[in-house]
Amino acid sequence: MTTPAEFYETHRELLDKAIEAAAVRDYWSAYPESPSKSVYGEDAAATGEQAFRALLGSDFPIEVPGATGTISTERSPYGVSLDIRYPRGEPADLIAAARAATPVWQAVGPQGRAGVAAEILRRINARIFELAHAVQHTTGQAFVMAFQAGGAHAQDRGLEAVAVALAESTRIPATTTWTKPQRGGDPLRLAKISTVVGRGVSLMIGCNTFPTWNGYPGLFASLVTGNAVIVKPHPGAVLPLAITVQIAREVLTEAGLDPNLVTLAVEEPGDGIAATLATHRDVRIVDFTGSSEFGNWLEANARQAVVYTEKAGLNTVIVDSTDDYKGMLRNLAFSLSLYSGQMCTTPQNFLVPATGIETDAGHRSADEFGADLSLALDKLLGDPKRAAGTLGAIVNDGVLVRLTEAGDTPGVIHPSTAVTDEQFPEATIRTPVVLRIDAADEKTYTREWFGPVSFVITTESTRHSLDVFRETVRQYGALTASVYSTSQEILAAAREAALDAGVHLSQNLTGGVFVNQTAAFSDLHGTAANPAATASLTDSYFVSGRFFTLQSRYHLAGETNA
Amino acid sequence: MTTPAEFYETHRELLDKAIEAAAVRDYWSAYPESPSKSVYGEDAAATGEQAFRALLGSDFPIEVPGATGTISTERSPYGVSLDIRYPRGEPADLIAAARAATPVWQAVGPQGRAGVAAEILRRINARIFELAHAVQHTTGQAFVMAFQAGGAHAQDRGLEAVAVALAESTRIPATTTWTKPQRGGDPLRLAKISTVVGRGVSLMIGCNTFPTWNGYPGLFASLVTGNAVIVKPHPGAVLPLAITVQIAREVLTEAGLDPNLVTLAVEEPGDGIAATLATHRDVRIVDFTGSSEFGNWLEANARQAVVYTEKAGLNTVIVDSTDDYKGMLRNLAFSLSLYSGQMCTTPQNFLVPATGIETDAGHRSADEFGADLSLALDKLLGDPKRAAGTLGAIVNDGVLVRLTEAGDTPGVIHPSTAVTDEQFPEATIRTPVVLRIDAADEKTYTREWFGPVSFVITTESTRHSLDVFRETVRQYGALTASVYSTSQEILAAAREAALDAGVHLSQNLTGGVFVNQTAAFSDLHGTAANPAATASLTDSYFVSGRFFTLQSRYHLAGETNA
Repeated sequence: MTTPAEFYETHRELLDKAIEAAAVRDYWSAYPESPSKSVYGEDAAATGEQAFRALLGSDFPIEVPGATGTISTERSPYGVSLDIRYPRGEPADLIAAARAATPVWQAVGPQGRAGVAAEILRRINARIFELAHAVQHTTGQAFVMAFQAGGAHAQDRGLEAVAVALAESTRIPATTTWTKPQRGGDPLRLAKISTVVGRGVSLMIGCNTFPTWNGYPGLFASLVTGNAVIVKPHPGAVLPLAITVQIAREVLTEAGLDPNLVTLAVEEPGDGIAATLATHRDVRIVDFTGSSEFGNWLEANARQAVVYTEKAGLNTVIVDSTDDYKGMLRNLAFSLSLYSGQMCTTPQNFLVPATGIETDAGHRSADEFGADLSLALDKLLGDPKRAAGTLGAIVNDGVLVRLTEAGDTPGVIHPSTAVTDEQFPEATIRTPVVLRIDAADEKTYTREWFGPVSFVITTESTRHSLDVFRETVRQYGALTASVYSTSQEILAAAREAALDAGVHLSQNLTGGVFVNQTAAFSDLHGTAANPAATASLTDSYFVSGRFFTLQSRYHLAGETNA
Repeated sequence: MTTPAEFYETHRELLDKAIEAAAVRDYWSAYPESPSKSVYGEDAAATGEQAFRALLGSDFPIEVPGATGTISTERSPYGVSLDIRYPRGEPADLIAAARAATPVWQAVGPQGRAGVAAEILRRINARIFELAHAVQHTTGQAFVMAFQAGGAHAQDRGLEAVAVALAESTRIPATTTWTKPQRGGDPLRLAKISTVVGRGVSLMIGCNTFPTWNGYPGLFASLVTGNAVIVKPHPGAVLPLAITVQIAREVLTEAGLDPNLVTLAVEEPGDGIAATLATHRDVRIVDFTGSSEFGNWLEANARQAVVYTEKAGLNTVIVDSTDDYKGMLRNLAFSLSLYSGQMCTTPQNFLVPATGIETDAGHRSADEFGADLSLALDKLLGDPKRAAGTLGAIVNDGVLVRLTEAGDTPGVIHPSTAVTDEQFPEATIRTPVVLRIDAADEKTYTREWFGPVSFVITTESTRHSLDVFRETVRQYGALTASVYSTSQEILAAAREAALDAGVHLSQNLTGGVFVNQTAAFSDLHGTAANPAATASLTDSYFVSGRFFTLQSRYHLAGETNA
């Protein structure tokens, strides 16, 4: 057995560094993103893949309170048979078990809880290859991306949440003294004790595309602030979170704690267990990543809980001018192609003035820009092997349906085509579709087309682009925005429009940084300033709603009772 | 003109000290609570009273957007004619003016806003005598209490909110650089800018009893985080907030800012302007102190806003044993009498075992405890002058009605009597009523009897008291709780019960600290852990919902575009 305090001592230096990194916000990472042997060891890749393979077609080894039978709902976008069976728990049993586990967890205190969380993350990192395969075959992310975004970066986001939660929940010291001078008498003296108390049972509802990256912040923020967490994965992406829960339970047990502080809640599609759990009176925190429809429903109906959502919106690029046209096109093509645009951060709407744009390669009309972007896509995705590595696979039929619908819409300038992957011939892989439409065609582009669908939208001018940007993001939300301009004036106007619209802004990205990526410890991901989210990873609002600080006070011995 | 940056420089040292004090949580105060000449100057008292008298029967000098006529709603519990007329603004105009004022305020940044806020507080403090009279004659607080709680302590709570808001909104640096090493190449380098953006128009709904103390935290927290604030006083206590708004507008104007960042919204009782404003789509923050009924309504209906409430509950004292019986009785009698129990923190329910309690004055049965408490009240309030100075006056008819109802209920052990004040013979002053009832009589004591009404409730044992405490506070909420016991075991059990019930706890207060008082920079006031409130003054949750941090990022010159 290792006590929570011992885990804290083990990871104290890391936690201190993480807290400092979240304050400084320069580049910092705790978990290497390179899957190379020099980093993770000679056998790590093979061992991880073996561990993943061993899970296929079997009963996933995990205990669930009130288990009644098993379910198996996952399907690999790469065509590999998964057939993993998970025990299903009854919502009432899951909640009862979470509540029963909480008092002892509360008594552990913030540092001990952060120590346990850091140990969970250490063991998650130790199984990063296994997890990468799990992410790849549930989300359709290509392996390297699954390793990075689903592995190292998700772990960094998890550690960031641990750090911010630990910092915020310890801002008021656990014990203090209060000494108030009294005129002509001994001072009044009190001892004061501050105790962090979790809000209540926490529910984390995972998504199909980024189960770990989007799931870890809420999971770890809730844990560290003293709550038990029920993890409800998307039926299409259970395994990455099942492994996570398994690891958490293993560490909790080793720390002498109740493993039911973290439980797995699986369901058949349509069971509606998320809604049942989220509206239960004892569930006091809900984290959700997914559709605007269900996210808005949760915000409206999970009234007994604080609800942190990350939904969807109209990610927008304002194209005005550039002094690196090639770099811009290469950057944009990659942003559209990465994981087939199945990121909540992928640009959808490109606003381009009808009069065209000025570039270092000369003036380009809106049509020419569209053609050049299409060429850049073809160049990036010309080699099937490289294309597969960038695009990953299409995660589910919903995306395919939208892709087909977009392809049948007038204005296609880059049609989507199928790509064959050597390693996984059954994989469903498609290149992005790009359409050219007019700013007047609001109906089309103010809808969110999650997946590899984007629009080159012709506006009257960059000023008009900024207006469209401001209005559409205000109304429909966005997780990302970017602008390309050589004019300081336009850049300033774009920054102002982004503040108005309430969205983070990237300017002139032409190199190795992409608008769809945010870095833990430096970039906030999402913001409640527009309708696309109520969560921002990871600011103090994201953690401070998860706990209360309760105080007690008493006279210190030696005080004169005036 | 003095710029916000200049105000920040002027008050920087104070703000730094306040931030540190909020972190250390020892005794600290910025505004002296003593009305003595040696502190505030020879003429301050007379000048302040003169300024207050000059306002009576006149049009209060303040501009209000969209003003249409005036209203006059206040009535002094001390019987002095007030007849002050305030201009009434239309809700739509107030909101439009607030919105129009916001963009420039946002651009000022957190430090400049904190500087302006600190200057507002400085000028409020300079008018502390005038404000004390205003508080006295609207709330019924006796003068010294009005000076302290309504003056210095309210200002301290305001500064605390400024400090916590400034600290939380600057945790993410305004500008940073991000440098990520690249294998075999120049690092990726980005500049990042973080901008604090207010959530939107803020509405502060004041209460009748503590317009400044309960109002300042929300007002200043919203201001510093970049929001315009509409101040809607209780119709019975307009003047203290009207003076506050007047001062705020004066400082804002002097800083070259739009005074409509802080506006006054008065109404006739029953106009329902608070509900209209609170549910307007552009009002995004609501602060409320008052009845559970309207507070719960706001939480349920002001869905577009983040809602911070301080409502009411069952403040409970668990009496088990004491080694300072006299001190305990004196302390409790004062707690019940201070401002006639018209504090949201005044104890209502005393849980006493039927078997009696052990004290340094011997065993006392529950009946004897009730009789001794009554005697202690009589002793404290025996001298009319001293009684008036402690009790203050009854704030409104609602309190009188409950007092009469309680007096007509079986079990009265200390009847309420009228007290005559020499200085204000018209004042409505009453001593507290105390009733003795059984724990089975839940219907009576689980109702909140705001005012000088309390119950000695006989339980089976202290364990039973703790159960009643835990269950009633969990269900009905509480702002305070206290316990008297000489047993470490009972104290530990009481602490645990308080954590379970979600309420702050005072232990064995027998001296000059009272359960109804909380000190800024040290004690949290209220907690969202039970139904009595969603606000806690001032933790990070109280400020972090009032703003968003939006980021922009761009490549730093010299980067290789990989």
